Amino acid sequence: MNKTKVIFLIGVSGVGKTTVGKKLSESLDYPFFDGDDYHSQSNIKKMSSGNPLTDEDRMEWLKKINALAVSHVQNEQSCIIACSALRKTYRDILSSSIELYASWYFLEGSYDLIYKRMEKRTGHFMQSSLLKSQFQTLEIPENALRIDVRWSSNRIVEIIKSNGLKKAEFGVYGLGVMGKNLSRNLAKNGFVLSLYNRHLKGKEEAIAQQVKKTYSELYLAYTSDDLEEFTSTLQTPRKIILMVPANTIDEVIKQLQPFLAEGDILIDGGNSNYQETRRRMHELKSKNIWLIGAGISGGHQGALLGPSIMPSGDKTAYAQVKPFLEPIAAKDKNGSPCCSYIGPEGSGHFIKMVHNGIEYAEMQLLAEVVLLFRNMGFNPDKIATILDSWSRYTTSYLLEITAVILRKKEGKGWLLDHILDKAENKGTGSWTTISAAQLGMPSSMITTSLFSRFISFFIEERRLFSENFTPSQSPSKISLTEGDIANAYRFASIINHYQGFRLIKEASKSYQWKLDLSELARIWTSGCIIRSTFMESLVEIYKTTDDLLLHPHMIKEINALKPYVKKVVTEAIHQEWAIPAINESLVFLTSFSKAKSTANIIQAQRDYFGAHTYQRKDDPSGQYYHTHWQ
Amino acid sequence: MNKTKVIFLIGVSGVGKTTVGKKLSESLDYPFFDGDDYHSQSNIKKMSSGNPLTDEDRMEWLKKINALAVSHVQNEQSCIIACSALRKTYRDILSSSIELYASWYFLEGSYDLIYKRMEKRTGHFMQSSLLKSQFQTLEIPENALRIDVRWSSNRIVEIIKSNGLKKAEFGVYGLGVMGKNLSRNLAKNGFVLSLYNRHLKGKEEAIAQQVKKTYSELYLAYTSDDLEEFTSTLQTPRKIILMVPANTIDEVIKQLQPFLAEGDILIDGGNSNYQETRRRMHELKSKNIWLIGAGISGGHQGALLGPSIMPSGDKTAYAQVKPFLEPIAAKDKNGSPCCSYIGPEGSGHFIKMVHNGIEYAEMQLLAEVVLLFRNMGFNPDKIATILDSWSRYTTSYLLEITAVILRKKEGKGWLLDHILDKAENKGTGSWTTISAAQLGMPSSMITTSLFSRFISFFIEERRLFSENFTPSQSPSKISLTEGDIANAYRFASIINHYQGFRLIKEASKSYQWKLDLSELARIWTSGCIIRSTFMESLVEIYKTTDDLLLHPHMIKEINALKPYVKKVVTEAIHQEWAIPAINESLVFLTSFSKAKSTANIIQAQRDYFGAHTYQRKDDPSGQYYHTHWQ
Repeated sequence: MNKTKVIFLIGVSGVGKTTVGKKLSESLDYPFFDGDDYHSQSNIKKMSSGNPLTDEDRMEWLKKINALAVSHVQNEQSCIIACSALRKTYRDILSSSIELYASWYFLEGSYDLIYKRMEKRTGHFMQSSLLKSQFQTLEIPENALRIDVRWSSNRIVEIIKSNGLKKAEFGVYGLGVMGKNLSRNLAKNGFVLSLYNRHLKGKEEAIAQQVKKTYSELYLAYTSDDLEEFTSTLQTPRKIILMVPANTIDEVIKQLQPFLAEGDILIDGGNSNYQETRRRMHELKSKNIWLIGAGISGGHQGALLGPSIMPSGDKTAYAQVKPFLEPIAAKDKNGSPCCSYIGPEGSGHFIKMVHNGIEYAEMQLLAEVVLLFRNMGFNPDKIATILDSWSRYTTSYLLEITAVILRKKEGKGWLLDHILDKAENKGTGSWTTISAAQLGMPSSMITTSLFSRFISFFIEERRLFSENFTPSQSPSKISLTEGDIANAYRFASIINHYQGFRLIKEASKSYQWKLDLSELARIWTSGCIIRSTFMESLVEIYKTTDDLLLHPHMIKEINALKPYVKKVVTEAIHQEWAIPAINESLVFLTSFSKAKSTANIIQAQRDYFGAHTYQRKDDPSGQYYHTHWQ
Repeated sequence: MNKTKVIFLIGVSGVGKTTVGKKLSESLDYPFFDGDDYHSQSNIKKMSSGNPLTDEDRMEWLKKINALAVSHVQNEQSCIIACSALRKTYRDILSSSIELYASWYFLEGSYDLIYKRMEKRTGHFMQSSLLKSQFQTLEIPENALRIDVRWSSNRIVEIIKSNGLKKAEFGVYGLGVMGKNLSRNLAKNGFVLSLYNRHLKGKEEAIAQQVKKTYSELYLAYTSDDLEEFTSTLQTPRKIILMVPANTIDEVIKQLQPFLAEGDILIDGGNSNYQETRRRMHELKSKNIWLIGAGISGGHQGALLGPSIMPSGDKTAYAQVKPFLEPIAAKDKNGSPCCSYIGPEGSGHFIKMVHNGIEYAEMQLLAEVVLLFRNMGFNPDKIATILDSWSRYTTSYLLEITAVILRKKEGKGWLLDHILDKAENKGTGSWTTISAAQLGMPSSMITTSLFSRFISFFIEERRLFSENFTPSQSPSKISLTEGDIANAYRFASIINHYQGFRLIKEASKSYQWKLDLSELARIWTSGCIIRSTFMESLVEIYKTTDDLLLHPHMIKEINALKPYVKKVVTEAIHQEWAIPAINESLVFLTSFSKAKSTANIIQAQRDYFGAHTYQRKDDPSGQYYHTHWQ
C-alpha cells in the first residue's frame, strides 16, 4: 500500500467537488487543488461564452494537472485534486505514470438534482446550459467509489477518509438473496462494505467476488471467503450484519469470535428465535461483544429498495449501527425511516416473529377470499378486478400482489391453477403459536392460519377424506355478494391485527420491554410485507390506546361489519366451504366478548378429579376452595 | 441391628402361615416351627370338638413358644415361628424379653376369602366354623407388616425377605396428594416402601412420618426427610419414583445423584415435558443410572385406587420396575393392568401430554354442551338428567362427573354458579399445542380448548368487550333439540380423539418410537380421566387401522352426525353463543376433507415477495419453480 496518495474528486460541474475537496484538505492536512484553476485563458473564455471545449482544448489542461500530481508524488506528498474528468481517456491522462498512487471518488447525482443546484449558484463562470453536454460526455468510472451527492459534504468527507484508510465501515456476512440485496442497498447509500460468503468447495467459491462483479454499485467493496481476511478489512469497532439462516447463527458466531475484538458489534438480521437471541446476547456480552437482533421484513425486493427494520438489544451499541440501518430502511409517508430501536433483548426478533404471524393470517384470509369468489363462479381475472376495486377504501401490499398473482396467465389458463396446493412455512409462524401458548394468549388467527398450512400438507389424506366426507346436501343457491365478502375480510383482518398487537403488548408486559405499539405500527407502514392503509391508521390509534378494540372507531366498525361476517360464515358452513380464518375471527370475538365464560364448569371438573381447587365469584380475595363433589 | 431374628408369621387359621413358613425356612436356612405343634393334648381336643380356647388355655401354650424363641436367641440362632397370635396380649407374651429380636408379619385376608380356602382344606384339625370367632378375637397388629394373602406364597416370601434385610423395595420421593396416594396404593399391594419428603423448615417437616402415621397401611414404611438416610434404606438397585412438580425434576435429580449407585432406577411420575425427559435420560445414562418417564393419569383418586400408567425409556430398566407399577395400576375390562411399556425416550410423557390435550378438549366440549342447554333455558338439574340419559348409548368419566357437578347445590342454588369462570392450566395443554406446532400437525381441538381457557382469564377485558359488542340482533326462537346437541357433541368428541391419536401417530413416526395405538387406547380405558366407552371401541378400531377416520364405522357415523353439528354451529353463530370447540370440529373436518386447498395462493404469495419458490401439480418430480410475477 502506498503511503503517498493522489485523491481525485471527479464528476460533472455542480456536484460539490470544491466544497468537499476543501473540507477533506482541512481534515487530512493534504493540499487541495481545484482543476478549474489550471485552465488556459482561452478555455475560460470559450466556456464563459457557452461553447463546450473540444478534446484538444482539454488535453493541455489535463497534462498540466497530471504534472502537478506527479511532482507531489515525487516529493512523497499526498494531495487532493478536483477535476470533472468525465471520460476514461481524460482520467488516463490525469493519472499517467502515477496510477498506483491515484484513488478516484466519483460524486454522483441526477441531472435534475444538479441542474437545480446550478441554478442556485452565482458567480461561477460556467453556465447551467452546459450541464446537458457534460452528462452526454460522462463515462461512468468503473474504478471509482461512487458517492451519492445527496449526502452532506461532511458525510462525504468521512466516506472518502474511511476508504482512504483502506478499511470498510460495515461488513455483510452471507450473500444469499437477502444479504446480496442488503449489500447493494448499503453500497448505494455510500457505505464502504466488506462482503463475506463462506467457502464450500465446488459449491460456493469466491461468491463475494462474483457478487461484487455482478453489481457495479459494489465495485469498491472488499470481498473475501476467508474470515480472518474479512474481519481484518473492517474498521474497529467492527460492525457486521449476519444474513444467514437462523439455524446456523450459533455456528457462525462461534467461527467469527476468534477474529473479533472487544466492542465489536454483530447484527443478526435473520429470523432468529427471540429467546435464542436473548441467550446469545448474554453469552457475547460476557466477552464484551454486542449483538443486535434485527428483524428485517420486505423480502428480497425490500432488502434492495428499503426494508422495514426492527433492531433490538443494547441501546448504546445500537446507536453505533443506527447510521447504517436507518438510511437503508424504507421511508414512511412522512419520510422517516422504517427502522426504529424496538427495545432490549430479543424484542426485535419477537416483533418480527409476530409480524410474520400477522402476515400468515393475512395471506390465509386473502386465500379464503379468493376461494369464496371462485365458489361464487368468478374467474381469477374477475376476482383480481374486485380486489383492485377495494383499494378505493383500503389496501395493503398483500392484497395488491394477490391481484397481480390472480391475473398471471400460463397458456390459456391461469398460472395459479398449476401451483401445488401445499403451503410451506419457515419457523416464525410456528414460533408465534408457540409464544402465544407460552404467554397464555389466545392468538387464534395466527394459529388457525398455521394449521391451515399444515392441513394443506396432507394431500393424500385430504384426497381420501374428500371421498369419504362429501358435503351432506347438494349446495343450494349462493346468497353472498361481493360486499359481504369485502366486509367479512375487513372484519377478520381487524381481529388479526388486534390479536397480533395484543400478543406484543403481553410480551412487552411479561418481559418488561416497554414497547411502543404506535411506533411499531409506524415502521410497518412501509417496506414490510404487512404494510397497508390500515397499518397507517393503527399508528394514530395506538397513540391513544393500547387496546385496538376499545377504540371508539373500531368498536363502531366491528359492530357494523359483524352481520356480514356472520352471513359469510353461515353460508360457508351450509355449503361446507373451508374458510377457517374468517370463521375464527368471528368465533374469537364471540368468545372474547362474553362477560360470562364456561370456565366455571372446567374449574369444577378440575377440582373434582384433580383437587386443583377453584376461586369463587363472591370472594374477591382470590382464595382457593375445594369441594368434595361426591 | 440384631443379626439374630425371630420371624413371627401371624394371622387367623387358613391364611397360609405354614406354607409361607416352610418356604421361608428353605430360602433363609432358618429353622421353622409351627405354633400349632406346641398345643397341649387338651387344647387340641377342645378345638377338635368345635369349642374355642379360653385365654387360660392359651397362656401355657404361648409361654412354651416364647421359651422356644428365647432359647434360639440365646444361641444366636434365627428362627421362624408361625402362630395365630390374634391379640396384642398374646403377642406380648410371645416376644417377652426378646422384643428387639422379633419381627411380625401379619398375613391378612377377608373372612370370605379365608372361609373359601378353609372349605377346600382337608385333614386339618380345626373346623371352619371356628373362623368367625377368630375374626372376632383378632386385634389388628400395629407393628406388623401387613401382607395381602392373595399374593402367591413365593411373593410373600420375597416380601418378608426383603423386609428382613431391613431395606425397602421401592422409594417414593415427594408426598403431595399424588405421591401420598400412590404410596398407599403401593403399600396396599404389599410393597415395602421408603418414603421421602423434603424438609422445609417451618413449612414441611417430618412429612413422611406424618403421612405414615395418618395411613395405617404405611405403618411399616421407612420415612425420612434426609436424602442420605432415604437412599440408604432402599435395596439396590434402588427404585425410586419421583412425585414432584415437573419444574423441580432437574433440581431433585441433582440432589439425589450423590446418593445413587450404578444401576439405580428413577421413575419420573410427574407431567414432565417429553423432550426434557429425553435429555435427562441421556444425561443419567452416562452415569449408568436409568430414568423411566412415566405419565400417570387418574388424579388423586386414581393414584390411590389404580391409575393409568404410561412408562417409557430403556426396556430392560422398565422390566425391573414393572412388578411395582403393574399391580398398582387400574385394570381394564379384561382384568389386564392399565400400565404398559409405551416406547423409548420420553414417549410416555408425550403420550400423557396428549392424553391431557384430549382431556382439555373433552372438558371444553362438555362445558359448551352445558352452555347450549342453559341457553335453551334448562337448569343444571335438568341438564344433569339429560347427560345421564346419554349413558344409555355412550359414556365417559368426564361426562359422568359433569352430571354430578351440575347437581351440586349451595343453598337454594347451584354451586357451579358461584365458581369463578377463569380456567387454569398446568403446562401439558400448552405443550400439546407447542408439540403440534413443532411436528406440523393441525391439532386444533386441543389448541382451541387451550385458547378458551386463556380467554377465560381476561375477565376484565371480556366484561368491557361484552358491553361494546352486544349480539347484533335480538335472538329469535332457538330451534335446537337435545338430540342435535348430543349428536354435535359426539361428532366433536370423535374429531378430538382423531386429532389426539393422529398427533401421537405423527410423533411415533417422527421420533421412530413405534407406538401401538390400540394398546395406548387400552390403557386409557380405565383409571385415567379420559376413560370412556368410546375409548373401549378405539382399542378394537386401532387394531385394524391407524387412521380413525378411515374406518368404515367412523365414516358412517361422522357423515350421519354432520348435519347435526352444522345445525348447532349455525344456530350458535346466529345467536352469538361461544362454542369454539364444537365449531372447530366442523371447521377442521371441512378443511381436512377438501382434496383441493387454497394453499396454491399462499405459495404464489410467498414466491412473489420472498422468492420462496413453489411446486407444480403437473410436475410430480417435486421440482421447485420461481416466477417473475410483475
